[in-house]
Amino acid sequence: MTTVASAQLSLSVGDVAANRDAGLAAIDEAAAAGASLIVLPELSDTGYVMRSPDEAAALADHEGTLGAWAAAAARTGMVVVGGLCVADGDGTLRNAAAVVDPTGVRALYRKAHLWDAEPDLFTAGDDPPPVVDTAAGRVAVMVCYDLEFPDWVRKAATAGADILAAPVNWPKLADPPPGERPAEVIKAQAAAATNGVWVIVADRCGVERGVDWVGGSVVVDPDGYPVAGPAGSGRPALLLADIDPARARDKALGPRNDRFADRRPALY
Amino acid sequence: MTTVASAQLSLSVGDVAANRDAGLAAIDEAAAAGASLIVLPELSDTGYVMRSPDEAAALADHEGTLGAWAAAAARTGMVVVGGLCVADGDGTLRNAAAVVDPTGVRALYRKAHLWDAEPDLFTAGDDPPPVVDTAAGRVAVMVCYDLEFPDWVRKAATAGADILAAPVNWPKLADPPPGERPAEVIKAQAAAATNGVWVIVADRCGVERGVDWVGGSVVVDPDGYPVAGPAGSGRPALLLADIDPARARDKALGPRNDRFADRRPALY
Repeated sequence: MTTVASAQLSLSVGDVAANRDAGLAAIDEAAAAGASLIVLPELSDTGYVMRSPDEAAALADHEGTLGAWAAAAARTGMVVVGGLCVADGDGTLRNAAAVVDPTGVRALYRKAHLWDAEPDLFTAGDDPPPVVDTAAGRVAVMVCYDLEFPDWVRKAATAGADILAAPVNWPKLADPPPGERPAEVIKAQAAAATNGVWVIVADRCGVERGVDWVGGSVVVDPDGYPVAGPAGSGRPALLLADIDPARARDKALGPRNDRFADRRPALY
Repeated sequence: MTTVASAQLSLSVGDVAANRDAGLAAIDEAAAAGASLIVLPELSDTGYVMRSPDEAAALADHEGTLGAWAAAAARTGMVVVGGLCVADGDGTLRNAAAVVDPTGVRALYRKAHLWDAEPDLFTAGDDPPPVVDTAAGRVAVMVCYDLEFPDWVRKAATAGADILAAPVNWPKLADPPPGERPAEVIKAQAAAATNGVWVIVADRCGVERGVDWVGGSVVVDPDGYPVAGPAGSGRPALLLADIDPARARDKALGPRNDRFADRRPALY
C-alpha cells in the first residue's frame, strides 16, 4: 500500500511565483502525511484563463516550474505530477503535464485534446500519454479533456499504467441535477472501472476571470468507486488515499472475463 | 418529446410461455402509459442461467418470441427492443436482441462480447450494433457486457443512434460501497455522456438458479444523468421517462467543442 494525494488548488492567473508556491505547499503537506505521489491541477503555474498567446508566452517558465518540482521531489522523496505551461523550442506553447521524481523529470506530456479557447493559445500534442515506472507504481498522465476520450484512456491503460494521473481544470458549465455527481467525475469513474486502473484527478477551485470550476478532485479505485473525494467545488482540498497500485495489474471481471482480453479490436 | 419505458422483470428460467407473457404485460402497461418504445431484459424469453447447450437449444423459439412482439407492436403502435435466445440456421445459438415495430422485425443483433459461461452456450456475433430509424427515434441495440466496451458504444453512436437500448442481465458480483451506484450503471452513464446519446437499460430481478441481479434498469440523458431509475435490485419495475430523442443529434460540449469532431482517430 502507498499513500497518494490530489491537490485541489485556488490559483491566481498570472502570478507564477505564488501559484508555484501553492503547489509546493501542497507537496510538503502531502509529504508530511506520508504520501508517495501527488497530483497538481492543469496549468498550475500560470493559471488557466489567459487572454492571449502573448500573455501565455510571457508567463511560461516551464524550466522554473520543473526545477522547483524536481527539488521538492528530491527533498520529499515523492513523485509529483502537475500541469504547467510549456514554451517549446519551436515557438509553440503547450498545455502540458510532467511526471517528476527524486531522479528528475521523467516525462513531459503535451495535451492532445484541446478545450474551448485553448487552440488560440496552445498547439495540441501528438504523442501518447507516457507511462512512467516510479516508486509509487506505473504512472500515466493525461490532461483534463483528454480523459473524456475512451481511446486515449485505453491507450494509457494497455501501455501498463497502474495509476492514471489527470491534472484538470474542469470549468463549471452547469450545475448537475440535485444529488448527481458532475458528468466529468462519472467519466473518470468509468475510465477507472472500464480499464481497471486507479484514477487520480486534481481539479481547480476559486473563480478565475469569471470562470468557476467543478471542484471534482477525486481518487477512484480500479472498480470505479471513489476512495477519496470528490472534493466539491469552491474550496481547496488535499485528498489522501491509501492505495495498492498493483491491484491494477489484475484485469479480471468475475471468474472468466478480462477487461482487456475480452476486447474485439478487429471489429472496432 | 416521446415517452420511453424500461421493464425490469423477474423471470423463470425455462418457462418461455410465462416469460413471454411477462414481457407482453410490460408492453401493454407501457402502452397504457403512452410509451412509444420499451426495452425488455436480455434473454427475456428463456431466462439467463441455462445449464447446457442442449437446454438452451430446447428452449430457443425466437420465431415465437418475435411473432409475439410483432403482434404487440402492431397492436400498441410501439417499438419493442428485447433480448431473446436465437437458434440460427447453421446450428449456432445466439444471445440476441431484436428491434420490432408495427411494421415487423426491423433488426436482429447477436451479442458480440460474451460474459462468463456464455461461450459454453452461445456463439458471439461479429456484426456491429444496428441503428434503426423508428417512430421513436434512431434506436441502436447492444446486449449487456457489450455496453462496457467504449469502442462498441462509439460505433453505435457515430452510426447515428439517438437512443442506445441495452437489454441486460447484470449479475450481482458484489455490493457497491455504501451510497455508490453499481459500476455497471456508472459505465452506462459515461457511455451516454461521452457520446451524447440516450441510454435505456433494462435489467433483471429475481434470483435465478442462485444468481441475483444488480437491478440497474435506468434511463440516462445525453449529459449522463439518470431521468428514470436506477430501479434498484430485488423488485420488478417499469421505468417511464419523457425524452426528446433529437437532443442526441447535437454533440456540442460548450461553445467550441464537439464529442465526435474533437476525437483524434489518427492517434488511437
